[in-house]
Amino acid sequence: MSNLRIDGDRLWSNLIETARFGGTPDGGVRRLTLSEEDSQVRLWLEERAEVMGCTVTRDRLGNMFIRRPGEHDGLKPIAMGSHLDTQPTGGKFDGILGVLAGLEVLQTLHDAGIATRHPLMLVNWTNEEGSRFAPAMLCSGAWAGVFSEDYVLSREDAAGVSFGAALEAIFAAGEAAVGAQEFAAMFELHIEQGPVLEREGATIGVVTGVQGMRWYDLDLTGRAAHAGSTPMDARADALLAAAGLIQSAARLAQELGGYATVGELTITDPSRNVVPGALRMSFDLRHREDSGLDAMEGGLKALIAALEGGISADLRQIWASPPVHFDTDCLASVREAAGAHGHRDIVSGAGHDAVYVARRAPTAMIFVPCAGGLSHNPAESATPADCAAGAQVLLDTVLLHDRKTAG
Amino acid sequence: MSNLRIDGDRLWSNLIETARFGGTPDGGVRRLTLSEEDSQVRLWLEERAEVMGCTVTRDRLGNMFIRRPGEHDGLKPIAMGSHLDTQPTGGKFDGILGVLAGLEVLQTLHDAGIATRHPLMLVNWTNEEGSRFAPAMLCSGAWAGVFSEDYVLSREDAAGVSFGAALEAIFAAGEAAVGAQEFAAMFELHIEQGPVLEREGATIGVVTGVQGMRWYDLDLTGRAAHAGSTPMDARADALLAAAGLIQSAARLAQELGGYATVGELTITDPSRNVVPGALRMSFDLRHREDSGLDAMEGGLKALIAALEGGISADLRQIWASPPVHFDTDCLASVREAAGAHGHRDIVSGAGHDAVYVARRAPTAMIFVPCAGGLSHNPAESATPADCAAGAQVLLDTVLLHDRKTAG
Repeated sequence: MSNLRIDGDRLWSNLIETARFGGTPDGGVRRLTLSEEDSQVRLWLEERAEVMGCTVTRDRLGNMFIRRPGEHDGLKPIAMGSHLDTQPTGGKFDGILGVLAGLEVLQTLHDAGIATRHPLMLVNWTNEEGSRFAPAMLCSGAWAGVFSEDYVLSREDAAGVSFGAALEAIFAAGEAAVGAQEFAAMFELHIEQGPVLEREGATIGVVTGVQGMRWYDLDLTGRAAHAGSTPMDARADALLAAAGLIQSAARLAQELGGYATVGELTITDPSRNVVPGALRMSFDLRHREDSGLDAMEGGLKALIAALEGGISADLRQIWASPPVHFDTDCLASVREAAGAHGHRDIVSGAGHDAVYVARRAPTAMIFVPCAGGLSHNPAESATPADCAAGAQVLLDTVLLHDRKTAG
Repeated sequence: MSNLRIDGDRLWSNLIETARFGGTPDGGVRRLTLSEEDSQVRLWLEERAEVMGCTVTRDRLGNMFIRRPGEHDGLKPIAMGSHLDTQPTGGKFDGILGVLAGLEVLQTLHDAGIATRHPLMLVNWTNEEGSRFAPAMLCSGAWAGVFSEDYVLSREDAAGVSFGAALEAIFAAGEAAVGAQEFAAMFELHIEQGPVLEREGATIGVVTGVQGMRWYDLDLTGRAAHAGSTPMDARADALLAAAGLIQSAARLAQELGGYATVGELTITDPSRNVVPGALRMSFDLRHREDSGLDAMEGGLKALIAALEGGISADLRQIWASPPVHFDTDCLASVREAAGAHGHRDIVSGAGHDAVYVARRAPTAMIFVPCAGGLSHNPAESATPADCAAGAQVLLDTVLLHDRKTAG
């Protein structure tokens, strides 16, 4: 381990400074991808990088690649990074910490005049959140070959503005081909967005992988009926059926060690004096293993097949992301770098750019705690000490990996 | 019982003929109150009444009073009637049967040249449905003194059009003061809008009263959280809490012999990968007795008080209508008139104009079956034979009551 220390105060001050771009009165950040505020933070980052003599390359989707030369500059760079866009009611840390901690790593090396063997590369991925342009992780996905460039450019926001038009409007696109950059490895620091580290008093999460996820829509159809004249035993109440499924799915997740969430439920033509005749609801099932996902899906299907009382059901899987297991060597570097801190292995429940990056390059993630596990919320909060610890582990990981990695 | 028979074919043909005013391709009727279609059916009714020599009076809210003189013309009239407006996706029978059967009673007496002791009065109440202008039973309520004339005139539809403006637009208002008409009694024939008569093979329901109803809004607040990174045991899931309440309320209603319905449930800022942090839901509780309503409300409050896991709740009663017990003498007339038909006593689960009329005049209702209990639906259906039986019982009830009632 080197004795090189990142500057926690500088990192914190950068977090606070960039939170002005889209800052909201409640202390949160609203910085939708490719908005004017996103443009401001991009320019801010570019300026900071250039002052250090780094080169900034943008690809045709606005992904930003900030390169610091290495002693062996022909090697593939070791990458760090995350995203600077936020949810509509986002916080100051989600994604942002990963980019600004990467910047702090570059700054620390720059100030100390230290050169790494590999070049380093700090990445700001466009549109991780997916809240202006669905789906999420759009441009790390494009880099990894999951989405075509045309697909990305044609995505539209709620106002009908295309991704391509939004990109032009803030001059965020570059000349580089999508996917042209290659990485020797990639490390993404992120807040946990869950309560586990905080609850267990750990500062660093060594993220061994990302849960698999399967998304479903379920339509339940019963029979709309008058609330005052339809005896309880003569009803086919779609909402009552849904209530049973919501409870059973939660039990199933607990038994199988996974997560089940019904986040959306919309009654068709709701009226307070009409027994709900039909509704649509979502299911989000997650598990660290495919076998666990299979068991949860099987359980859900059995519950639905067992519905009684004139309720019919139509379950459709609309999206799936298999479990990700991060690279063993990258994890070894993170684990070694985390040694001086309270740390534990953890599986990410949320998707991150690293999920797609891992399809093309050895990848791992580092988590730090956030207060109450709260994220996607103006009250999202991480302590200066934890942010500094995360950045320090990121620096140490990169330095260790730089020496260990061949080529 | 007189030997006078109503003409079931004529009644049916009038039902089919008036269903053209607002008729929809699926066989339903969309005749919102005070719409152009409502105007058409009002003019149709007025014409039919005047041909028989009845006088038509409209009050300042458009309630229509069709009067046939009696031998003792100074007596208060015996009234029949219901409403001609429909739900946006309504059927051909709800309300309409009560008015057209009343017209058939007048026509039968007219054709036979029979005079009753009391004058008779057929009423078409404005805006029973409450779907264009809330609340329901607005103008029978105004007649009964429940709502002021100004209140009614100032109600607005979804487009911001006031009741008063809508009334003017179709020239539906008359000169008569609201509430000026008095009734010796009032009989409302209606489809059951429930499955009980059909299920038990009865043709006529002697409606002894109307269930009491209490409406509530419940806000549940938990904690919005990431669906992928928040362990099941660390969640405060508002929808999971609601699911438990939905199931418990249904059980409670069955135990106490009442009805409980959650017809509306809206998650605040729903997203398929966010644990619902807050929602609003409605409760509609009904019971034939106040003591039953009290017990259901107490049970619901106990369930809410027992919510665990960081869920807070705010329950507000937003409306209540006490149980109605119809007039004993009116019921005796209905029961006697129903004697020749398969009949049974029944309590109405739905509100009707008769609920408000009963506050000022002796009142009872007569039900006939509708297919599958379905109402407020284009597929609403009653057989010609049942409609004719209902109209016959209405005629016989009026004739019996005319003789029995003093004054």
